[in-house]
Amino acid sequence: MSERNILLTLAYDGTDFHGWQIQTNQRTVQGELEAALQRLHNRRIVTNAAGRTDSGVHADGQRVNFRSTIDSIPAHKFREAINSALPYDVRVLESRHVPDDFHARYDALARTYRYALLVSPVQIPRFRNYAHRISRTPDVALLNRMAAQLIGEHDFSSFGMATAEGGHCVRRVDAAAFYPQPPFLVFEITANAFLWKMVRSIVGTILTCEPCGIAAFADILRAQDRSRAYVAAPGRGLVLHKVRYHESLGIN
Amino acid sequence: MSERNILLTLAYDGTDFHGWQIQTNQRTVQGELEAALQRLHNRRIVTNAAGRTDSGVHADGQRVNFRSTIDSIPAHKFREAINSALPYDVRVLESRHVPDDFHARYDALARTYRYALLVSPVQIPRFRNYAHRISRTPDVALLNRMAAQLIGEHDFSSFGMATAEGGHCVRRVDAAAFYPQPPFLVFEITANAFLWKMVRSIVGTILTCEPCGIAAFADILRAQDRSRAYVAAPGRGLVLHKVRYHESLGIN
Repeated sequence: MSERNILLTLAYDGTDFHGWQIQTNQRTVQGELEAALQRLHNRRIVTNAAGRTDSGVHADGQRVNFRSTIDSIPAHKFREAINSALPYDVRVLESRHVPDDFHARYDALARTYRYALLVSPVQIPRFRNYAHRISRTPDVALLNRMAAQLIGEHDFSSFGMATAEGGHCVRRVDAAAFYPQPPFLVFEITANAFLWKMVRSIVGTILTCEPCGIAAFADILRAQDRSRAYVAAPGRGLVLHKVRYHESLGIN
Repeated sequence: MSERNILLTLAYDGTDFHGWQIQTNQRTVQGELEAALQRLHNRRIVTNAAGRTDSGVHADGQRVNFRSTIDSIPAHKFREAINSALPYDVRVLESRHVPDDFHARYDALARTYRYALLVSPVQIPRFRNYAHRISRTPDVALLNRMAAQLIGEHDFSSFGMATAEGGHCVRRVDAAAFYPQPPFLVFEITANAFLWKMVRSIVGTILTCEPCGIAAFADILRAQDRSRAYVAAPGRGLVLHKVRYHESLGIN
């Protein structure tokens, strides 16, 4: 039986999930996806995701690959087949055939996350699970000067932990900026990879540092000390927006 | 005991409500608000809303007035007092004192609604309750030429029903246009008042008429015949965005 390597682009509402990664007795995105794939294949299927999103974190461009022995479904039709077996809060946006050695996580060249801040003195109920509310409009130019400090290759130990045992904390940030999208202020950041909790920790620290200025934020970044960061912004404002691969794969 | 007339600006997530208007055995926004006001006042309080939104329809600028006999709360502090008694899916954004004869509905000069269309071949789960999904990007210029037909004073019988028995169907539309706000296409319409289901019926008809062109839409509008309109777009895409009053009141 021949095996095909299938890549999925996934969107999900993270509200009712305990994150991506499969856990016993918790509802997770990987758990629901692998259950749907198991129903389709009548056997256990293992999935690899580009980003292991936390509890409450959303995605509209998560990438996941798995190996299928089903010959009868054209690669682009896995979308429909899997969607018919998934719950309402996860959807496959696209499915395609990728080379045998392709791995959604190891082959990812860059990830883009977006963090939505709702600027409002009172909660707007329909955004309660999709943004972090702040009461006053911050000085966006100042926030952007802080965000600019992140660009380039740095040891981000202050803002997260390596996900692999003994892993280092150097990451390359390609872009990081705040832009208004009323009623939201959105922070968008692209890096080759992220530490665990890195985006939320950066957002929380930038917001807390605003009254102290850029130098205070730069100090925390340079300290390479996890205890120096301020409390991470909540998961609900975060969306895994895009994962980029080598152009030769033609999947961006 | 002196009575004050208090005006509230209200935001709500319409998903779990059977619309604004109070009904026995149904969860409604008016029902929840009047229950909160009753707990605060220890007696039944009647509220008047500018727009009687339907099931699933949201608001971020609904206006509601009621009469209070509580002297101990400054008008602008009703916001906090009421919010502490309301469920998570309704919030008072602002409270203020208005003249005794002010009525949120009868004094409204104009209402603005927004309708969100999600342009995506597959549902994006976190928008499922907040937009109506369409698969392909429509010709926005053509939709806007149809929308332009609505501007001015017309009999809108084709697109709705008068809410009062024997009421006429003439309304004055001040503005109506589609604008892209990726991943959404938003329709925004301002009129002195709206018939029941008018916005959703207009959106549904414009989308269905797109392949037939402007003349087909203009014909339906001119027909003044409810049976000519196409199926109304679902409530979940609609938001009561703003209600305008006479400038002398200083509440816009």
